[in-house]
Amino acid sequence: MGEVAVRVAILGSTGSIGRQTLDVVRSLPGRFKVVALAAGQNLSLLAKQVREFHPQYVYYQKKSGQAPPDFDCAYISMEEIARCPMADIVVVATSGRAGLFSVIAAVKDGKTVAIANKEPLVMAGEIITREAEMNDASILAIDSEHSAIWQCMTGEPEKPEKIILTASGGPFRNYTKAQLKKVTPEEALRHPSWKMGKKVTIDSATLMNKGLEVIEAHWLFGIPFENIRVVVHPQSIIHSMIEFRDGSVKAQLAYPDMRIPIQYALTYPKRLPNPELPRIDWDKLKEFTFEPPDYVKFPCLKLAIEAGKAGGTAPTVLCAADEVAVDLFLKGKIRFTDIPAIIAACLDAHKPIAEPSIELIMETDAVVREYAVELAKKKGN
Amino acid sequence: MGEVAVRVAILGSTGSIGRQTLDVVRSLPGRFKVVALAAGQNLSLLAKQVREFHPQYVYYQKKSGQAPPDFDCAYISMEEIARCPMADIVVVATSGRAGLFSVIAAVKDGKTVAIANKEPLVMAGEIITREAEMNDASILAIDSEHSAIWQCMTGEPEKPEKIILTASGGPFRNYTKAQLKKVTPEEALRHPSWKMGKKVTIDSATLMNKGLEVIEAHWLFGIPFENIRVVVHPQSIIHSMIEFRDGSVKAQLAYPDMRIPIQYALTYPKRLPNPELPRIDWDKLKEFTFEPPDYVKFPCLKLAIEAGKAGGTAPTVLCAADEVAVDLFLKGKIRFTDIPAIIAACLDAHKPIAEPSIELIMETDAVVREYAVELAKKKGN
Repeated sequence: MGEVAVRVAILGSTGSIGRQTLDVVRSLPGRFKVVALAAGQNLSLLAKQVREFHPQYVYYQKKSGQAPPDFDCAYISMEEIARCPMADIVVVATSGRAGLFSVIAAVKDGKTVAIANKEPLVMAGEIITREAEMNDASILAIDSEHSAIWQCMTGEPEKPEKIILTASGGPFRNYTKAQLKKVTPEEALRHPSWKMGKKVTIDSATLMNKGLEVIEAHWLFGIPFENIRVVVHPQSIIHSMIEFRDGSVKAQLAYPDMRIPIQYALTYPKRLPNPELPRIDWDKLKEFTFEPPDYVKFPCLKLAIEAGKAGGTAPTVLCAADEVAVDLFLKGKIRFTDIPAIIAACLDAHKPIAEPSIELIMETDAVVREYAVELAKKKGN
Repeated sequence: MGEVAVRVAILGSTGSIGRQTLDVVRSLPGRFKVVALAAGQNLSLLAKQVREFHPQYVYYQKKSGQAPPDFDCAYISMEEIARCPMADIVVVATSGRAGLFSVIAAVKDGKTVAIANKEPLVMAGEIITREAEMNDASILAIDSEHSAIWQCMTGEPEKPEKIILTASGGPFRNYTKAQLKKVTPEEALRHPSWKMGKKVTIDSATLMNKGLEVIEAHWLFGIPFENIRVVVHPQSIIHSMIEFRDGSVKAQLAYPDMRIPIQYALTYPKRLPNPELPRIDWDKLKEFTFEPPDYVKFPCLKLAIEAGKAGGTAPTVLCAADEVAVDLFLKGKIRFTDIPAIIAACLDAHKPIAEPSIELIMETDAVVREYAVELAKKKGN
């Protein structure tokens, strides 16, 4: 009925969020046009996506000695895709620090950016939000928690007083300290609630993910850290809540399925019917439970909140140390409980510098990564 | 800081909602000016309210042989108060059918009406919503459930697909049928969650209140009965939820305190800080449970929904029979379980007439009241 298709660029199209974004596009025919796809090294999946969605532009990590694939579209850089004039919305579904420059490029260009990748806002929240404001760019949340907060804020004339960020508590919520020491990568990758990439899955198990979300929420919604509270809700149906100064609280609920927040970001302010999205079965709903997070057993959450409060380069140290530590854990080089130990040691060794430039952030990132690897060698077997 | 005080008229100022409305006015000094108060027969409380709030107009039920109280303000009728040109907002906090003509007068006059009294919308929902639309009047919900729905709808460009109306389940949720037969008025008036008037308290115990709320929600939000679902949530913290066509659900939460929805209606779209309003203690929050309502043990809920679906004069029959039955129960004339029996018999004996005029509604009301009294005599001891 004369609806113009929304033109979408996806950074990280072969990852979990990227694939689910394409699921949403596929399930709402005619609503979207994929104009650009950027991936890492999964060229076989990217090739399938290109054949199905016919983007005009593509990016992938070129490997020396590898013949370039025969794509019927132009190869441009990630940042060019982020600024792509044909895109109405840029979905940033990359992992770790990979999306940082793209997000900055997109907001400087005044784009609408739907962001699932936490690290850019954690590392450079000050720069990104300032540039977004100066260039009239919109940053939309795709993370289920931040989407929940955003959905609840819609239509409210004022900011909430508090954010109540819910957490599943991770698969090891009820483990003892001794059990946590023995957690294997395979065990940690069996996450109970969400279909996610490996890095996020481990971050969920250590509660680092929740810590990164606290920092992200601070930047996205301008709420002071003191007013962001984490509550463990193992059923993962309430995705977060906001509390207003009149004592009223709003919550957003859904079965855990990333396609719901992805679709909301793509169709905002509208909501479209999508028979593939799950519905809460009100007959089966029995209980929601709540408990405070265990900051002692899961030190990453506290480390993240403290790094967020310290500000400046501290969150970059947090992210860099975490990326290295998670990678080493997945490779079997360090124990699960070494992850927070390495991050804490990196933060301890660093004196945060306020209002860092993007160059200083990248420099800090590089230095900390090296330092973390060295530390891990001492810890590792 | 130059804020103009909102001028408030309150119908039913000596009842539970009326008193709590004045609590809100008192706790936000300078924000509101009480311009008119209407009460029933509690003249001593009304006199106190007049001395404290200095309204220009007052109404009370005059009793023959009683000397008129010495109020320093003009005596006008309820409906004149409802149309009072000096009022920016008319709070309808009457009980039973008492508010019907006032609500109609107010919406015909294009007023903003904050409504806590369910029966007017239940009995004459079609007329009231049509008149409100024609005369550009706003109907704001004060009931905690409808306020929750309204708060969640704020800012959404489209209506929700479903309403999930939460119910405490009443104090007799776990009673057997035999126990229900023996419930005394004293027992029924000890309601677990809310500070309310007697009629509403008994209606809460029979679940009639929830049934009336289903009908009210239908008229307030234009949602078909098939898409309004009642879920028992004994903690009474989630006050209701709405489900959108993308599978996302929004809920409003607060400790059970009517001052929160009352204040929201008075300050909408703003929210004001009020230190007297309770805050959810996130450290103490343990669980929310959910279960389907028991339509067999509590037939009033089903009777109400069926009367709502039948439409026309059926909801008037429901309300009239319920007012009579509750009154007789409170007077010890009939048993708790006779309440639904009398209502069912009245509904059975009535053939609903579609699109009734207000005269027909009042006529039906009168006939049914008589009929219910007769029936009760047969049931009574």
